Amino acid sequence: MSTPFTHEIRVTWGDCDPAKIAYTARLPWFALDAINAWWEAHLGGDSWYQLELDHNIGTPFVHMSMDFRAPVTPRHRLICDVWPSRLGETSVTFRVDGRQDTVLRFEGTFTCVFVIADRFESQPAPPALRDVLIPHIRGA
Amino acid sequence: MSTPFTHEIRVTWGDCDPAKIAYTARLPWFALDAINAWWEAHLGGDSWYQLELDHNIGTPFVHMSMDFRAPVTPRHRLICDVWPSRLGETSVTFRVDGRQDTVLRFEGTFTCVFVIADRFESQPAPPALRDVLIPHIRGA
Amino acid sequence: MSTPFTHEIRVTWGDCDPAKIAYTARLPWFALDAINAWWEAHLGGDSWYQLELDHNIGTPFVHMSMDFRAPVTPRHRLICDVWPSRLGETSVTFRVDGRQDTVLRFEGTFTCVFVIADRFESQPAPPALRDVLIPHIRGA
Amino acid sequence: MSTPFTHEIRVTWGDCDPAKIAYTARLPWFALDAINAWWEAHLGGDSWYQLELDHNIGTPFVHMSMDFRAPVTPRHRLICDVWPSRLGETSVTFRVDGRQDTVLRFEGTFTCVFVIADRFESQPAPPALRDVLIPHIRGA
Repeated sequence: MSTPFTHEIRVTWGDCDPAKIAYTARLPWFALDAINAWWEAHLGGDSWYQLELDHNIGTPFVHMSMDFRAPVTPRHRLICDVWPSRLGETSVTFRVDGRQDTVLRFEGTFTCVFVIADRFESQPAPPALRDVLIPHIRGA
Repeated sequence: MSTPFTHEIRVTWGDCDPAKIAYTARLPWFALDAINAWWEAHLGGDSWYQLELDHNIGTPFVHMSMDFRAPVTPRHRLICDVWPSRLGETSVTFRVDGRQDTVLRFEGTFTCVFVIADRFESQPAPPALRDVLIPHIRGA
Repeated sequence: MSTPFTHEIRVTWGDCDPAKIAYTARLPWFALDAINAWWEAHLGGDSWYQLELDHNIGTPFVHMSMDFRAPVTPRHRLICDVWPSRLGETSVTFRVDGRQDTVLRFEGTFTCVFVIADRFESQPAPPALRDVLIPHIRGA
Repeated sequence: MSTPFTHEIRVTWGDCDPAKIAYTARLPWFALDAINAWWEAHLGGDSWYQLELDHNIGTPFVHMSMDFRAPVTPRHRLICDVWPSRLGETSVTFRVDGRQDTVLRFEGTFTCVFVIADRFESQPAPPALRDVLIPHIRGA
């Protein structure tokens, strides 16, 4: 059984638009930050930057889908629950749910594939990543 | 019959990540810029900013979904085709397809609802916006 | 004697450009995040958002100056030292020094003035803010 | 005598903060976009991306200084005047003035040095760039 992973984001003034809520285009950015933090926490400090530069592994996204349930504001920290929800031969899907003050603000799914970074060439999920992902997979 | 609307984006160095392609989180940002430009072109120069501040109409997003087909880079202008693909009583869905050098790079659907801006209270699609949207609707 | 205030930033993949370092335009963004965090820490949780919306105080910037000493990367947390370095009748200057792994990466000064937010009208430094700033002022 | 170069930016809703003006941290971003566009216009379509990847030339910034004269909003296009104001042995300084509706909104100076990109090693201004810069230099 894996411990649920959460990533905390400090939403600020500069994230907000004149409607006084975080601008829509900031929300996928936050969700990707949370996925990057998931990797960092589960790969001993490595995240996309080290995967690409030190291990020659890229994980480009092929799909994202988000539902925005309630506005995000700077009045509370944004707590993102992140977990891998499906692992295929060549792709992995992450689920990210964002909450503030216990209220769900958005939920999204993000699917990436695996590439040999310096050739941008598809590859199956590298075993080292697969081993890290498998114990944490739970349905969406 | 409406003329297809396109919005051109200059992708730059600062949009790219170390994989030398536009960072994933920039792509929904580009798509929203394109939708905002659609409003500006069809509302005589008004876009989200003027809708909110001058007309008290907000259009918060409730859903976005994007498929990333090929990397976006600064080597070509990004041409976004934008059109409303579905108009409901209380929501409108926009489709945005991004192309570079004739190759489809991403396609996405973005659904927003309508609110009375200063109360953030749901309202049906305001007639003035409905009239502008209807002649341009075509299926996704 | 005031305790030096530091704000920690997680630099990520998405902050970096194809040179594999944080894009220049992200660095003033980081510095402003650090100043916003300074206010939050010293105003009992309020920062620019609450100052503007709850207290009708705006602090627009009139000047920024930054020297970039060494590249910022995701390999270390970015630690920003923030302090007010000069308080005038109508303005305050913040100093922000960014370090990674003990090495100075940038240093900057940022001057803002005070406005009555809903009228965007200049005002002297509000007494409540002045009282919070004074014990922390030290030269640049 | 060189023709003055201007770069036009469409300021949008997403660039603005709850004060209904472009967020301070967006302004250096706009200015850098304008400098990048200057290179593109004067290097036959090449800008930072192509300089780095195709010509192995990097131009990291070592200093920026900006004065913010008046708020930037989406109500007008932002017109940036860009020119090189000083060329040294190993550095070049660009001046960027941003205007909306004929009113000066900000002015800034931005100094970069030259590096051999794949080694991030200092070099004198490459002759090909020097030749392009010299006819356009005018004092700040």
